[in-house]
Amino acid sequence: MSFSFELIAEDKQARAGTIDLGHTKVETPIFMPVGTNASVKAILPCMLKAVGAQIVLSNTYHLYLRPGIETIEKLSGLHRFMGWKRGILTDSGGFQVFSLSDLRNINPEGVYFKSHIDGSNHFFSPEYVVELQYRWGSDIAMVLDECPPYTMDKSYVKKSLDITINWAKRSIRARREHTVNALFGIVQGGVFDDLRKEAAIAMKDLEFDGFAIGGLSVGEPTEDMYRVVPIVNEFLPKNKPRYAMGIGRPENIIELIGMGVDMFDCVMPTRNARNGTLFTRFGVVNIKRQQYRDDDRPIEEGCGCYTCRNFSRGYLRHLHKAKELSFYTLASIHNLYYYINLVKSARKAILNGRFRSFKDEFYALMKEGEADE
Amino acid sequence: MSFSFELIAEDKQARAGTIDLGHTKVETPIFMPVGTNASVKAILPCMLKAVGAQIVLSNTYHLYLRPGIETIEKLSGLHRFMGWKRGILTDSGGFQVFSLSDLRNINPEGVYFKSHIDGSNHFFSPEYVVELQYRWGSDIAMVLDECPPYTMDKSYVKKSLDITINWAKRSIRARREHTVNALFGIVQGGVFDDLRKEAAIAMKDLEFDGFAIGGLSVGEPTEDMYRVVPIVNEFLPKNKPRYAMGIGRPENIIELIGMGVDMFDCVMPTRNARNGTLFTRFGVVNIKRQQYRDDDRPIEEGCGCYTCRNFSRGYLRHLHKAKELSFYTLASIHNLYYYINLVKSARKAILNGRFRSFKDEFYALMKEGEADE
Ligand SMILES: [Zn+2]
Ligand SMILES: [Zn+2]
Repeated sequence: MSFSFELIAEDKQARAGTIDLGHTKVETPIFMPVGTNASVKAILPCMLKAVGAQIVLSNTYHLYLRPGIETIEKLSGLHRFMGWKRGILTDSGGFQVFSLSDLRNINPEGVYFKSHIDGSNHFFSPEYVVELQYRWGSDIAMVLDECPPYTMDKSYVKKSLDITINWAKRSIRARREHTVNALFGIVQGGVFDDLRKEAAIAMKDLEFDGFAIGGLSVGEPTEDMYRVVPIVNEFLPKNKPRYAMGIGRPENIIELIGMGVDMFDCVMPTRNARNGTLFTRFGVVNIKRQQYRDDDRPIEEGCGCYTCRNFSRGYLRHLHKAKELSFYTLASIHNLYYYINLVKSARKAILNGRFRSFKDEFYALMKEGEADE
Repeated sequence: MSFSFELIAEDKQARAGTIDLGHTKVETPIFMPVGTNASVKAILPCMLKAVGAQIVLSNTYHLYLRPGIETIEKLSGLHRFMGWKRGILTDSGGFQVFSLSDLRNINPEGVYFKSHIDGSNHFFSPEYVVELQYRWGSDIAMVLDECPPYTMDKSYVKKSLDITINWAKRSIRARREHTVNALFGIVQGGVFDDLRKEAAIAMKDLEFDGFAIGGLSVGEPTEDMYRVVPIVNEFLPKNKPRYAMGIGRPENIIELIGMGVDMFDCVMPTRNARNGTLFTRFGVVNIKRQQYRDDDRPIEEGCGCYTCRNFSRGYLRHLHKAKELSFYTLASIHNLYYYINLVKSARKAILNGRFRSFKDEFYALMKEGEADE
């Protein structure tokens, strides 16, 4: 176990720290690009480095189904497989089993599910999911959990939470037999404050290296997210990293950093890029719009990304209209650069004890900007 | 006019030279990647540089329809538009008008055609096509020509050739009013030896900076190609570059270099890459095959491209199966690197007076290799 977390600075609830993964370090707060199939969509590892990514997320559910654990093992593990030497966090597959697969059947032992690719039958237990992530060499593995849909009532969420807590304990035991670099627990509990508190208390004393807050951004109002995160963080140990799974919009990330969250991942920068939606300090640029046809400016004035240093809005709009593959790459480079540097700037502000004014500036620029939405 | 061509070495018919485009140089023989819509598919300019591209081809027909000449002019010309500082050759649009557009109507004045994008009506004259390429700043412009389908009989090809020759003369006159960096004539004549000779003789004395051989690889047997190219080259001036348009397979390029052709372009490396067909010294690798699932070797042992230096066949097969966009980029990088370096090696062999043994080695490796086809 070479994982360690050092808390370097606090600015009210906001935190700056360093995660040491042994072979590489991660400066928190951190944004992790998503590489579902062991590839961040349209982005090569050399570009990931260029936009400043320190750690990426990949998906146990997807990797297990394709190419499968045997292939990744034969090809020397996930880092060598995807040509990425920095950090890799893999989620447990819990979320994907419940959102993507057909005919899932959950019981206290684990979850039966059908592959969304070919309909074949599979079973995930908490122990097996830890083993998978250990075998392909994740730097940070996540426990199997159930993430109940936002529409479920409290009695369902309570029952689900009991299973998730039980699975967390089994994961800790399974982990003792292996040496997964790090293992994070996941706090569920939906939008129910008492269940979130119960979940955080149940998790905090288990021997996890960090804690994720799951079940956010699954359809609930933003107010619910902003209310339950501080409840959870109150009980989580200060000396371990906190990770808000699947969050989110730039303002969500800024708010949650202010509540003491250290790690983020989201498909939004890459997915929205492919749809032509580009993030800037001044709001969103919808590159499809006619107004950008002859616009020689970069996506964002002053942006240091490869795309903004070399190409105009007019050219990007042309590539989008012509459905050129390079559009997806150039747009994703800019959006990832934006996200990673937004969080990097937040970190700097925390180190300088000026997170509050950083946040004020963030919202002021958004308001004054001539954004498209 | 800053264009010049220097013939540096000859090895039997094969030639090595340098084209000076004023702002950049091109070493011949050269392979030019194709960037139809002002973008080489799935490849960014930084990667084009990394694979050693010195000049790319873009398409007047496509650029004229989208984004249009006004937009490219407002965005400061083609080099700035596509973020590419090295050489750009644009074809005249003749080939695309005849292969892509609907309801074309050719007459001695020019060609009426309907856009394949929106059905709108357009007219290309030889003069306008020169003007377009001048206005957006091509380093090398091509004259408007008619490229008759392989199925046409000799009387049609003869009539078509008369129009093409007349258009070439008008292009030369139109060029005097502008200063297009360079203008190349195109030799047509189908598979008819006497028409090819007539075309070459008619072109050779016009004030072109170079000459293309068009109408090759349009469905004719390879023997026809190998027969008409030497006929044409016999009459073309030695002190000007010769360009075989749209050629071709690696062995076609090697053969035509041996016949004294200096410039090549083809969509094959990028198009085949997207289909999972990868070129190597030992033949073709069809990365889709099951046999590559757990294969930790690069596409080609010893290849210096980014893809081979960082990724296994197993990973590339996985990306292909998962339809990951990065597959197209990684496969295109390798195939372009292969093509560009094949031609670069041919140049080196010519400079060393050993093109014949280079060619023998090329075929020997192809034969001994454990290729997929
Ligand atoms: Zn940018
Ligand atoms: Zn290669």
